[in-house]
Amino acid sequence: MFGVTILGNNSAIPAYDRHPTAQIVTLNEQLFLIDCGEGTQMQLSRYKIRRSRINHIFISHLHGDHYFGLPGLVTSMGLMGRENDLHLYAPAPLQQILQLQLDVADTKLPFKLHFHPLGNDATLVSNEKFSVECFRVYHRIDCWGFIIREKKKPRKIDREKAVACQVPSVYYERLKNGDDYESRTGEIVKNEWVTIPNIPGRSYAYCADTIFNPAIAEKVKHVSMLYHETTYLKTLHERAALRYHSTTHQAAQIALQAEARQLLIGHFSSKYEDLGEFLTETTDLFPQTQLALEGVTYLINQDKQ
Amino acid sequence: MFGVTILGNNSAIPAYDRHPTAQIVTLNEQLFLIDCGEGTQMQLSRYKIRRSRINHIFISHLHGDHYFGLPGLVTSMGLMGRENDLHLYAPAPLQQILQLQLDVADTKLPFKLHFHPLGNDATLVSNEKFSVECFRVYHRIDCWGFIIREKKKPRKIDREKAVACQVPSVYYERLKNGDDYESRTGEIVKNEWVTIPNIPGRSYAYCADTIFNPAIAEKVKHVSMLYHETTYLKTLHERAALRYHSTTHQAAQIALQAEARQLLIGHFSSKYEDLGEFLTETTDLFPQTQLALEGVTYLINQDKQ
Repeated sequence: MFGVTILGNNSAIPAYDRHPTAQIVTLNEQLFLIDCGEGTQMQLSRYKIRRSRINHIFISHLHGDHYFGLPGLVTSMGLMGRENDLHLYAPAPLQQILQLQLDVADTKLPFKLHFHPLGNDATLVSNEKFSVECFRVYHRIDCWGFIIREKKKPRKIDREKAVACQVPSVYYERLKNGDDYESRTGEIVKNEWVTIPNIPGRSYAYCADTIFNPAIAEKVKHVSMLYHETTYLKTLHERAALRYHSTTHQAAQIALQAEARQLLIGHFSSKYEDLGEFLTETTDLFPQTQLALEGVTYLINQDKQ
Repeated sequence: MFGVTILGNNSAIPAYDRHPTAQIVTLNEQLFLIDCGEGTQMQLSRYKIRRSRINHIFISHLHGDHYFGLPGLVTSMGLMGRENDLHLYAPAPLQQILQLQLDVADTKLPFKLHFHPLGNDATLVSNEKFSVECFRVYHRIDCWGFIIREKKKPRKIDREKAVACQVPSVYYERLKNGDDYESRTGEIVKNEWVTIPNIPGRSYAYCADTIFNPAIAEKVKHVSMLYHETTYLKTLHERAALRYHSTTHQAAQIALQAEARQLLIGHFSSKYEDLGEFLTETTDLFPQTQLALEGVTYLINQDKQ
């Protein structure tokens, strides 16, 4: 399972029972929390998502609607007796704020909190199952997006053909990684003759809060699902630029240029009660668009092969 | 109108849709916010209480469940264009935390935020209509309670009797304040002959988080309504003491000793889903007890005369 569950889809001021930004990305048994607006711990309870399964938290920037829920979540994890390490990837000043809050409360966390400050575009986590990268976006203060990628699985051996081509079985591991085989007599067995390509890895890119900037499309090229903010409808593009936010049409343009498979839009301004127009305007340009609605899990589909 | 509206009645970890501590005290046109747990701004919206009417905020101590909602509330007040001064009474270290959070967000508030650090037992605000005092309670870290008092109104003149006793009308203001009148010939007109006592001022005491300590009863003597925490039922008095909290019977004992007219109990541990036993145990000793339930406004009754 690879999907994203929305805990908060509103911009700065909570309104109409919409909450500030937070998302849970589930990749098989892994839960990643991206941003943690005020009330995130209550939203996790509401949607029955177990806090104990979150081992990685990513904070895009230090506007309160993206992190004011973090001290409460971390404190509650401690009160609930968490023992597993927790990894926090965030703008550097958050470390001091959080430490100060723990100190004044005389709180000693019963688990290890690893703080990883964000910097240049980089890979933050990488193992055999997934990787997470961060990349800069363009907001009023330092701000980062994140890409979570499922690792591409190795190719499968077509045993019948491999035997027919006389590839020794000790060489199968290298075939899985895409190597050709050269026999002792110098004959080449092309990898694609004896293997089947496996499913390519899927990917989810979260672009946080950002002004429209085509450079982002290059950073998230070909992702399976792109989350891009749409704080405003298209007519308010001047206000959007002034406040370093984006509109429906701008999010769609990024998705088109990135050749993303799906687009998820959110971070709706509190001035809008009804969200229907956001979907209408965005699908005009990019039909594979969905509104990020709270409590809903959006599955990240297999890419075309 | 003098009453208290509960926005959060739970202890540290939010549970069963109960929120961390926050209360709004309404005294005629004044709104006072006491403590501001995570989610307070959403609870204000839910119960249709206008943030703009809050001019005084009191924070009892720096455990997160009593203040993690404050940065969000203050930021939202700014985004909504508040212009009126806001007075914040809180433990001193909160100033640095809040300033740091505003700085990293590059936020300039459009209103003046006056920070008043708490210290010894003292009167924090006093005008002709009300006063607010703070007093130390006994918790794991520095912690304060607050008493909000309606000012006692002046006595009323009984004009018929005042004329009969030949008190000159220029002296009426002094009569209202309780003075006797002495005529030129040395005759004394006792104040109570010519005036009617007015309604005595009501009062609300909030005792925050505290271990059982009879000294508190002296500090809140004769209040109209006493809020005292009951984190645990009576059987868990050892756990309560260990964690610097109180039980049902302990809250009732404080109310009895203080000769309070009404008792409101809250800050229920997340281990209890049903709250009925809290009321049963407390009313056993102090019948005029009510459970602090979220969204409910408890009127502070007139004292007996």
